[in-house]
Amino acid sequence: MVFETTAPVRFAHIDAAGIVFYPRYFEMLNAAVEDWFAQDLGVDFRTMHLERGVGVPTVQLSVDFGAPSVLGETLIVRLTPNRIGRTSCTYEALFTASGRDRLRVSGTLVCMDLKTQKAEPWPADIRARMERTVLTTP
Amino acid sequence: MVFETTAPVRFAHIDAAGIVFYPRYFEMLNAAVEDWFAQDLGVDFRTMHLERGVGVPTVQLSVDFGAPSVLGETLIVRLTPNRIGRTSCTYEALFTASGRDRLRVSGTLVCMDLKTQKAEPWPADIRARMERTVLTTP
Amino acid sequence: MVFETTAPVRFAHIDAAGIVFYPRYFEMLNAAVEDWFAQDLGVDFRTMHLERGVGVPTVQLSVDFGAPSVLGETLIVRLTPNRIGRTSCTYEALFTASGRDRLRVSGTLVCMDLKTQKAEPWPADIRARMERTVLTTP
Amino acid sequence: MVFETTAPVRFAHIDAAGIVFYPRYFEMLNAAVEDWFAQDLGVDFRTMHLERGVGVPTVQLSVDFGAPSVLGETLIVRLTPNRIGRTSCTYEALFTASGRDRLRVSGTLVCMDLKTQKAEPWPADIRARMERTVLTTP
Repeated sequence: MVFETTAPVRFAHIDAAGIVFYPRYFEMLNAAVEDWFAQDLGVDFRTMHLERGVGVPTVQLSVDFGAPSVLGETLIVRLTPNRIGRTSCTYEALFTASGRDRLRVSGTLVCMDLKTQKAEPWPADIRARMERTVLTTP
Repeated sequence: MVFETTAPVRFAHIDAAGIVFYPRYFEMLNAAVEDWFAQDLGVDFRTMHLERGVGVPTVQLSVDFGAPSVLGETLIVRLTPNRIGRTSCTYEALFTASGRDRLRVSGTLVCMDLKTQKAEPWPADIRARMERTVLTTP
Repeated sequence: MVFETTAPVRFAHIDAAGIVFYPRYFEMLNAAVEDWFAQDLGVDFRTMHLERGVGVPTVQLSVDFGAPSVLGETLIVRLTPNRIGRTSCTYEALFTASGRDRLRVSGTLVCMDLKTQKAEPWPADIRARMERTVLTTP
Repeated sequence: MVFETTAPVRFAHIDAAGIVFYPRYFEMLNAAVEDWFAQDLGVDFRTMHLERGVGVPTVQLSVDFGAPSVLGETLIVRLTPNRIGRTSCTYEALFTASGRDRLRVSGTLVCMDLKTQKAEPWPADIRARMERTVLTTP
């Protein structure tokens, strides 16, 4: 199963050339991951970070920027987890607008104990939901 | 009439103390102004900036920060224009969450010709919509 | 005494009109306050926030934006504390470039216990340094 | 030859876990590329974008995040161009602090005509400087 959300291209996102300044895409990507955790994996970032002491830092990213995005567009962000390790999760994210690819991301998150700042196995509830997601993704 | 929109408090907005880093509020405020123009005043920022050559820089801001906002909250942003000059517009914006004030802003926008970088009178269509809004605000 | 620092106008700071997007000025302002604490008041933000458990949230801001700043300029930021309360400090910050005012800020910081999230009196060492600064400011 | 610059870890860069929020690294990376162009390649971003009508969008990025960076550290950013194509340039960037790698980036920039929004060959002066840099890099 693919998780899908949207991100409007705001004035705050664009540069002097009128297109999205690429670091802003990573704010949108992080927001999409937040929404995925809250809406699909059953745990919002507030609960996870502040109550459960678990963080999900990004340890690897590969990004291909296809075409620029302009002010006023609504980007569709599709996030597909495709490999769950003991302490990590690799996903693909595709940003599109007007039926055209904008950027394609492959990223890896790690489950981290915020106190020890070390990787730790995914909590059972999050893992179960992630696996369900991966299994149902064609 | 008051224009109302919402802004989720994202991981990207918060600081080491777990509360919104105040420069992020101004990104939310700018997004609220964008939404106001697009949804209430009939002109989206893309059309206004890139096609009509009109910008609306902020020339004055006064802000009182009442209480901090935390990750996961949804802020309600209420924007009320209260004085329209020949080339300017002064508004109040109130951010609330959980029924409590977070920040109160008084701001002034100026209508600017992006080519000359000088203030110019509001275009008639935008002015008409703004006036309607001010007149109907108690 | 006035604390002075500089801020280059980066590509990341400018908008579609080629001028600084105003929320970015507050990132620069916050950096200037950080430098003031580290260089003049004898306590860097890391030590203050993470070791001493003290934060300095902004509770009030008034800003007049005089003229826009463009890519490649170096802004000079002059910060002058002018009133120290038991738990607060009010300052003026003036941003200039090419001998011309860009924005003028009046801001109030509050000393906050990060655990209780309540205002508390300035620690003696910080207060002593702040007072010295205010007294020597003409 | 390697181009080297530094980036302080500011309060604005860190997240609720007290470490750099990864989209902020890309703002630092973009600033390093800006400095490289201005200081090594002989053309600052203002002149390049606003006068010469040339942009250098990023079309590909691969990033490995080794260790987190904390508030108050000064990151050293070393940028090494390693392949110059007709319209592109691939570089490696290494961020270190306290003698330890933080992130390693491989990125590709493209020379773009801002009017046509299409890739174009590097201007001769920029290309000559880039080549000199690549040739002298071991």
